[in-house]
Amino acid sequence: MDGRSQGQRGNGRVTLTEVAKRAGVSRSAVSFVLNGRTDQRLSADTSNRVRRAAEELGYSPNTTAKTLRTGSSGTVALVSDFIGTTSFANSMVRGVLESLHDADALLYTVDTQGESSLESRLLLSLINRDVDGIIYGSMFTRTVAVPALLRNAPFVLLNCVSDDSDTTAVIPDEVAAGATAATALLSAGHHDHIWFVGVFPPGATGGAAWHNWSPLALAERLQGIDTALSAAGTKLAGRAMIDDDWDVANGRSSVAKLLASGATPSALICVNDAVGVGAYQALQAAGLRVPDDMSVISFDGSPLTTAVLPTLTSVTLPHEALGRLAAQLLLSGTTVPRIHRVPMPLTLGHSISTPPATR
Amino acid sequence: MDGRSQGQRGNGRVTLTEVAKRAGVSRSAVSFVLNGRTDQRLSADTSNRVRRAAEELGYSPNTTAKTLRTGSSGTVALVSDFIGTTSFANSMVRGVLESLHDADALLYTVDTQGESSLESRLLLSLINRDVDGIIYGSMFTRTVAVPALLRNAPFVLLNCVSDDSDTTAVIPDEVAAGATAATALLSAGHHDHIWFVGVFPPGATGGAAWHNWSPLALAERLQGIDTALSAAGTKLAGRAMIDDDWDVANGRSSVAKLLASGATPSALICVNDAVGVGAYQALQAAGLRVPDDMSVISFDGSPLTTAVLPTLTSVTLPHEALGRLAAQLLLSGTTVPRIHRVPMPLTLGHSISTPPATR
Repeated sequence: MDGRSQGQRGNGRVTLTEVAKRAGVSRSAVSFVLNGRTDQRLSADTSNRVRRAAEELGYSPNTTAKTLRTGSSGTVALVSDFIGTTSFANSMVRGVLESLHDADALLYTVDTQGESSLESRLLLSLINRDVDGIIYGSMFTRTVAVPALLRNAPFVLLNCVSDDSDTTAVIPDEVAAGATAATALLSAGHHDHIWFVGVFPPGATGGAAWHNWSPLALAERLQGIDTALSAAGTKLAGRAMIDDDWDVANGRSSVAKLLASGATPSALICVNDAVGVGAYQALQAAGLRVPDDMSVISFDGSPLTTAVLPTLTSVTLPHEALGRLAAQLLLSGTTVPRIHRVPMPLTLGHSISTPPATR
Repeated sequence: MDGRSQGQRGNGRVTLTEVAKRAGVSRSAVSFVLNGRTDQRLSADTSNRVRRAAEELGYSPNTTAKTLRTGSSGTVALVSDFIGTTSFANSMVRGVLESLHDADALLYTVDTQGESSLESRLLLSLINRDVDGIIYGSMFTRTVAVPALLRNAPFVLLNCVSDDSDTTAVIPDEVAAGATAATALLSAGHHDHIWFVGVFPPGATGGAAWHNWSPLALAERLQGIDTALSAAGTKLAGRAMIDDDWDVANGRSSVAKLLASGATPSALICVNDAVGVGAYQALQAAGLRVPDDMSVISFDGSPLTTAVLPTLTSVTLPHEALGRLAAQLLLSGTTVPRIHRVPMPLTLGHSISTPPATR
């Protein structure tokens, strides 16, 4: 009678029965409420209790959506802001393709450039063409508003989260990544002279080219760093500010300013690789050697890390793994509301050594 | 009577009348021959003259294709090997989007990973979904075989050419780019000690990760370099070999070997930016400064050029312009057989100076 539980009990999908149990009503009452049927009257109280229970349990409201298992078109869409049009982030597409390839499904990738009218037209166009499911992604990790049209198909959020409680999302574990960076420096003997490079001036969010969307990465990386340093009985010696975007030139000028300020860092945690490369340039200009005079670690794990000597140690964005997992979740039909955090591995370069003072 | 001229006279599309005039036959005879009609007999000589005239004038044989102007779905597909899944090259997608945006058309991007069975399924899937036209692209410039299915829609080749005489293609002007690189060094005073870095060993084509497809860039860049140097009364001092792919590590070892060989280059033309960055690393290890002791120029114009100091001068792949033009050609319906070569601009860094000897 209902397309909602769809035999998903085996893989953790919340069933109508569970919602009914929690709400203290009959299973059919739940079905009536959640299917929006009006041919049987239920009290407002009952309706409210059902809706609350469904929400608390994370019951998926994608009620009309066929799961991919039963989908017939064999086509999935990746709808994102800029994943397909920016370098590096598009390795997420590769991850998605890998999972779809295993399932013999085809992928259409569309970029909205962050324009909501274009997004609506693209979603309509895709839904009208019977895509079996949609991966809704973002070029960098941020909070998105889920477009209503998206709810016409099963969907998974890729590299973004939503404030809605009913979505399945896959993002990098940025908090753990921050701890990884701090721990790498602590392990090498750094303690009280670790600086972070890449916070924004008050009011700025970075990403002028990206609608000024605020990256989740900054706050979460800092949180992880603070936690790890605190556990080791220390804290950041300071946070160097960057004017707007996280690019090489801004990294260079930020670190040049830091060095000129009289600060005595033993190590720099740079918010991304481009800023890390800029740090190298500022250190070189100041006659300081990496890692002998200063250790450097960054985030992203992009090709920039091997463009410099010594190669830059970086906590790596797991783009392919994110894409793979998002596609797997979509294909499996297990779009249980949950945020999946994918580990960010440490890619070792040669930019970390013991601090000068302890030698 | 014919869907072929379709009112395209205004934008340079060859008409049946023009073909008839050149062939010295009636317009209806041209129509009969080119539409493959058999209800009126024409001599073999007439048929041949018509076909020759059509070819010489570049008359489009995409006869069954609706032009985009009359297309109804408002959707275009970009079908490529790896454009959507490799960094840097995907700025072509941005160019395509720009042109489509102006025309209010939507873009589906699909990557075939170079697998022909997947390509067939994707093309069928797109054609069944009524895309108005297809841009068929390649991640790097190469010769492709046009799949038969592609002929079910108007199409333009992006960053690739075909051996078929009836295709419209957009590629970078690599020959001119080679001349640009050589001229930049000649202008700075280099003459007899210019080396090229990046030829493959006999039998190798590079691109192990890309089905060993041979890039057109190598031969064409070398051709442009040779022509420009020859016009200046000189030639390459030598060509340094690279093991397989054009990456940083291979660039480094190739230039290290070159320096160890006793060669005395004053300047290096590196086949791409990654090899150029590798060259920097080898020069640094040998205690040589760029550009004081050695000038370096490369091709691509990728973000790697600003990851090194001094920044690397590079002849830049016009990815966005390629994408823009391909989409414009498709949208205009003027898919006249022709190879459009888009200029590759010189992006100035600080890696070129006068050779040491002339100071």
